[in-house]
Amino acid sequence: MAVGPGTLPTFFPVAGVRLGIGSAGIKKPGKKDLVVIELAPGSRVAGIFTRNQFCAAPVHVTRSHLASDAPRYLLINTGNANAGTGEQGLLDATHSCSALATSRGVDINAILPFSTGVIGEFMPMDKLMAGLPKAVGNLSEQGWEEAAQGILTTDTRPKGNSRQYGDDHQVTITGISKGSGMIKPNMATMLAFVATDALIDNELLHRALTIATEVSFNRITVDSDTSTNDSVVLVATGASNVVIDEVSFDTFVDQLSQVFTDLAQAIIRDGEGASKFVSVVVEGALNKAEALNTAYTIAESPLVKTALSASDPNWGRILAAVGRSNIVDLDVNLVQIFLNNVLIAEYGSRADTYSEEAGQEAMQSEDIEIRVSLSRGDYNETVWTSDLTQEYVRINAEYRT
Amino acid sequence: MAVGPGTLPTFFPVAGVRLGIGSAGIKKPGKKDLVVIELAPGSRVAGIFTRNQFCAAPVHVTRSHLASDAPRYLLINTGNANAGTGEQGLLDATHSCSALATSRGVDINAILPFSTGVIGEFMPMDKLMAGLPKAVGNLSEQGWEEAAQGILTTDTRPKGNSRQYGDDHQVTITGISKGSGMIKPNMATMLAFVATDALIDNELLHRALTIATEVSFNRITVDSDTSTNDSVVLVATGASNVVIDEVSFDTFVDQLSQVFTDLAQAIIRDGEGASKFVSVVVEGALNKAEALNTAYTIAESPLVKTALSASDPNWGRILAAVGRSNIVDLDVNLVQIFLNNVLIAEYGSRADTYSEEAGQEAMQSEDIEIRVSLSRGDYNETVWTSDLTQEYVRINAEYRT
Repeated sequence: MAVGPGTLPTFFPVAGVRLGIGSAGIKKPGKKDLVVIELAPGSRVAGIFTRNQFCAAPVHVTRSHLASDAPRYLLINTGNANAGTGEQGLLDATHSCSALATSRGVDINAILPFSTGVIGEFMPMDKLMAGLPKAVGNLSEQGWEEAAQGILTTDTRPKGNSRQYGDDHQVTITGISKGSGMIKPNMATMLAFVATDALIDNELLHRALTIATEVSFNRITVDSDTSTNDSVVLVATGASNVVIDEVSFDTFVDQLSQVFTDLAQAIIRDGEGASKFVSVVVEGALNKAEALNTAYTIAESPLVKTALSASDPNWGRILAAVGRSNIVDLDVNLVQIFLNNVLIAEYGSRADTYSEEAGQEAMQSEDIEIRVSLSRGDYNETVWTSDLTQEYVRINAEYRT
Repeated sequence: MAVGPGTLPTFFPVAGVRLGIGSAGIKKPGKKDLVVIELAPGSRVAGIFTRNQFCAAPVHVTRSHLASDAPRYLLINTGNANAGTGEQGLLDATHSCSALATSRGVDINAILPFSTGVIGEFMPMDKLMAGLPKAVGNLSEQGWEEAAQGILTTDTRPKGNSRQYGDDHQVTITGISKGSGMIKPNMATMLAFVATDALIDNELLHRALTIATEVSFNRITVDSDTSTNDSVVLVATGASNVVIDEVSFDTFVDQLSQVFTDLAQAIIRDGEGASKFVSVVVEGALNKAEALNTAYTIAESPLVKTALSASDPNWGRILAAVGRSNIVDLDVNLVQIFLNNVLIAEYGSRADTYSEEAGQEAMQSEDIEIRVSLSRGDYNETVWTSDLTQEYVRINAEYRT
């Protein structure tokens, strides 16, 4: 299941970025499971990675390589996360970097490895090695759409966004993402690779990545499980010669955030077993942490999520979730709860103006907004989530079998 | 579904406690949904209630009555939680107390009301009132088993425990509980009523209740949702004339804790859709909060819970849950993970001695222990949970329909 249409956009190529795709047989035979992304010399790269302490071997290696050298290649495989693999996992990740580095005549530190898939099994290195030449052999600026396919695991559809802005001096931003389960803020079993031809220094690039991630990938949850492999990578090749400085930064970040938000929301729309795309908006909180914590408590409540799957306007469960959000000195009489702008509860009870029919109607749509007004401050936050269906349980019970 | 046999014990009556059961039609017609528990004059009562800020009307009323007078009657209905009902809910709860008080010739403050069931709908007061005389009419010391039936909602089986200890001067402790979903520490959609004929003062009674609750009802989670109605009530009639003082307190608490733990575990065994009873043990934590937080992160992970439902020893998900438990400066190389005493992971990877067959075998049992050794301190904690099945989703998607 997935929510809404899953059509990919037209991908604008990013000058200085070429993508190659292969089938190494790490997933099922014949499936695309290997992607190599080549970056022109001089490209700048910023990354944000999982905060899970059991972070995967490739995340360790990527962090270390990123700190020591200018990256030239991203090496991505699906089907195996190379996580929970201890010392052997680190050796395997380093070994695959070394193979690609040798074949391309670059330093091993110029390779950033990424893996996604099953946790706790060793990487089938022979397959990975055998698949590499094919992926390298078809490097092309046109490879975005195939790459979007090549990084998927339990996803049911590829995810991409691409845009250009500016008149005389156009900037291109193009990206792909993957993720469907084990999705929770501070990122998840998700990978996102976004490239631009803007010319931007390392400090501004990292600042842009941080801002855009905070409003997008750090605002989504499918199942509250943070994965060991999450990575968001932003590449700037500079090939457009359009300089991003303090003056033009805000516009760039705004455009970048739209790409990021689209990629993040696409993950929720493709959430495992999802039949609804749900925006949880908390308004009038005392501070940002309170707003976010309340929004996540609602978004992660199994009872709220199962009610959503049944299109049941069971607002009592939303109320109960707000009530256990640890809001200090909450005045429950000031709390209002809306479903798609229908006021359903206030003064700790069903709203007088509310009718079950209006609630039912709001619940019929695939895109649903749950809005909670706390009326105690000026902070608003939104997180996005999916519903909890029998299909979610089936997928995750059968994942390894 | 439920885990293990669901047989009730022989209930030892508690001198000074009589129970009456009725069918008011608040649930389905003909189902027992009303229980009146009469306490002999002089009985002492202690209660612990939900921390959900949208706590239900009867919880407000019970707290207030408990503070002002010695209770003589507990009035319990299922089918409607009288939660999310605002001012009207308070009036309804008070009104039902008043009706019972008048019929029994006691002060209204001597009545403690409890409700469980659907949130957000007004109590059908006419049905409740019409059902009261029947329940009062069959008050009996033998009513425990029927009362255990009469307080259920989505539960598939009644829950009770009863024991006697002491030689010449015997003390009886008998209790019942209910709860199946919306179950999370700091209590849940759960009610428990435990009575003893011990003679104990208010201060010691409350201390005993607090200690026994902390190791039982505050160590369970089905779905991380804390309900609006949770209540645990401990009654001491004094009818045995066995005095509980500082000397005999520890033995009393030990016996009481065994009754409480059995009642709490019975809720997990009857968790909505449950096919497994899972003990999550965290050892060697730096402090209690760290041990509990890690245990709950594992116990509430949808991915761990779905793996359990499939009897899949997917230890990577347990590892990932530990990794996102916010343990400061965790040395992942010291962490060991066991399934029923089979060492499955250490040094951030699968254990060398581990075989998939041994993991599969451990997973086959209905009762499973996940044990995580952090090796950084002396604190150990255990929480109990159930697995996440398609049946859980079905039950909660269809609850109101």
